[in-house]
Amino acid sequence: MAFRPLHDRVLVRRIEADQKTAGGIIIPDSAQEKPSEGEIVSVGEGTRDDSGNRVALDVKAGDRILFGKWSGTEVKLDGEDLLIMKESDIMGIIG
Amino acid sequence: MAFRPLHDRVLVRRIEADQKTAGGIIIPDSAQEKPSEGEIVSVGEGTRDDSGNRVALDVKAGDRILFGKWSGTEVKLDGEDLLIMKESDIMGIIG
Amino acid sequence: MAFRPLHDRVLVRRIEADQKTAGGIIIPDSAQEKPSEGEIVSVGEGTRDDSGNRVALDVKAGDRILFGKWSGTEVKLDGEDLLIMKESDIMGIIG
Amino acid sequence: MAFRPLHDRVLVRRIEADQKTAGGIIIPDSAQEKPSEGEIVSVGEGTRDDSGNRVALDVKAGDRILFGKWSGTEVKLDGEDLLIMKESDIMGIIG
Amino acid sequence: MAFRPLHDRVLVRRIEADQKTAGGIIIPDSAQEKPSEGEIVSVGEGTRDDSGNRVALDVKAGDRILFGKWSGTEVKLDGEDLLIMKESDIMGIIG
Amino acid sequence: MAFRPLHDRVLVRRIEADQKTAGGIIIPDSAQEKPSEGEIVSVGEGTRDDSGNRVALDVKAGDRILFGKWSGTEVKLDGEDLLIMKESDIMGIIG
Amino acid sequence: MAFRPLHDRVLVRRIEADQKTAGGIIIPDSAQEKPSEGEIVSVGEGTRDDSGNRVALDVKAGDRILFGKWSGTEVKLDGEDLLIMKESDIMGIIG
Repeated sequence: MAFRPLHDRVLVRRIEADQKTAGGIIIPDSAQEKPSEGEIVSVGEGTRDDSGNRVALDVKAGDRILFGKWSGTEVKLDGEDLLIMKESDIMGIIG
Repeated sequence: MAFRPLHDRVLVRRIEADQKTAGGIIIPDSAQEKPSEGEIVSVGEGTRDDSGNRVALDVKAGDRILFGKWSGTEVKLDGEDLLIMKESDIMGIIG
Repeated sequence: MAFRPLHDRVLVRRIEADQKTAGGIIIPDSAQEKPSEGEIVSVGEGTRDDSGNRVALDVKAGDRILFGKWSGTEVKLDGEDLLIMKESDIMGIIG
Repeated sequence: MAFRPLHDRVLVRRIEADQKTAGGIIIPDSAQEKPSEGEIVSVGEGTRDDSGNRVALDVKAGDRILFGKWSGTEVKLDGEDLLIMKESDIMGIIG
Repeated sequence: MAFRPLHDRVLVRRIEADQKTAGGIIIPDSAQEKPSEGEIVSVGEGTRDDSGNRVALDVKAGDRILFGKWSGTEVKLDGEDLLIMKESDIMGIIG
Repeated sequence: MAFRPLHDRVLVRRIEADQKTAGGIIIPDSAQEKPSEGEIVSVGEGTRDDSGNRVALDVKAGDRILFGKWSGTEVKLDGEDLLIMKESDIMGIIG
Repeated sequence: MAFRPLHDRVLVRRIEADQKTAGGIIIPDSAQEKPSEGEIVSVGEGTRDDSGNRVALDVKAGDRILFGKWSGTEVKLDGEDLLIMKESDIMGIIG
């Protein structure tokens, strides 16, 4: 089953704090119960600029990202808890 | 009887949580009483960009969508409860 | 006597809930005392885009519309209660 | 003595509710003490669009208008109470 | 000593209510203690439009103006109380 | 040591009220404890307009300015108390 | 391990107040417990202007900066406490 986020939205799989990442990122203690690291599952086609041209997103499926810990809306797809958020909620890419 | 949403609005038929979707999407428990999955019934012609050109919507009639659960305004058309919302309230397309 | 709404405003005649419409639209119960269906009486010439060109409205006199039930300002013209609202308050056209 | 409103402002002479207008407009009871009908006395030259071109107003001196009843700032010019408001506060033209 | 207001600001000398103006303007009673009539002392060079061109102000030194009575910031220049305000705070020109 | 303000920011040296300025400016009494006169120490390169062109500031190092008395952020550079503020916080130039 | 900030964000290493900087900058006492001096670790590629062109940032890795002391979001990367903030939170460059 596929889910295609609309416009500048992305679908994100949250990476749990207890599974230490390859990059060695550890989320600060105060955020421990709700870590803000994730992996992009799929991305929208982007919004349009003033001339009506589509502006592609800067992230792509597979990217490991950091995002604001209260960002996004939770959904369950095929039994898995995922998040839909806007690209502007993403702080950067780990790689 | 036809209803044509204006500008960037769409008409949406809510899909009840108890009828499990083909895609296997299950809405999280806290949202159980008001699921946020739906089907596009009809769409507006879009708003205009700065140059006055019409920008068509990215969704079309028949699309299965996820939308913010408090989005839209309820109307009854031909005895059926439907929702009118803006395209920006739609998070993505299932399919 | 004529009334010409300015810019993107329209003049609307409210259609009472008790006079069931041809299209079979019934407004939800909670809105029963203040139905939000109407008919366009006259329209403004539209606002201007960034280049100063006039952008005509998408609705015209005679259109049957749905509008947010708290939209518009009430006026009495020739003894009739009417509403002046912005086109953006209109959700769609019934037809 | 002349007064030239600046930009998109207009100078308005309020028409009292007790002097029934030629057009037969009667302001709703709840607004009786502060009617919102008036006549344009003079208009500004308009604001500029993004390219710096002046955009003339859609109303002109002599127009009979309806305006939001709390709109405008009261001034006394040559002993007469008048109102200065923005064109966007004007709902339409009676004619 | 000269003072050059920046951008779209103007320097204004307040005209006291007790010195009745040539134009015969009398400020309404409720505003008696803080009249809103003034004379432009100097003006800024204007802001820039989207293309970076300077847009000159519509008022010039010497203009008699009406302005919102709470507008501007008070300064004392060469012992005289003056006001610095934005052109958008000016309602119109008396002349 | 140099400090280069970013974008449309400027670095300002506050001029104390007790050192009466050459221009004879006296700040009103209510502002006596925190005067709002200063001298520009250095300026940013300006922001970019919609076309991406840099828009230079209208003030330069050495300009004597008036600024809103709560404007800016205090910093200590080489033992001296200075202020970093945006150009839009500056009301005008004394000269 | 690399972290690439998105859009107009930058990754910043906070410089503690007790390690006096080469430039001799001392943060005011009231801010002593949370100094606002830092060093840019990495920068995003910038946002896009209205024409869709990428606008590069004005800061680069290695720049010593001053930033608003409540700016940014704290993250721990490879065991080090860092901050992700927007370029607009940066007041200027020390050099």
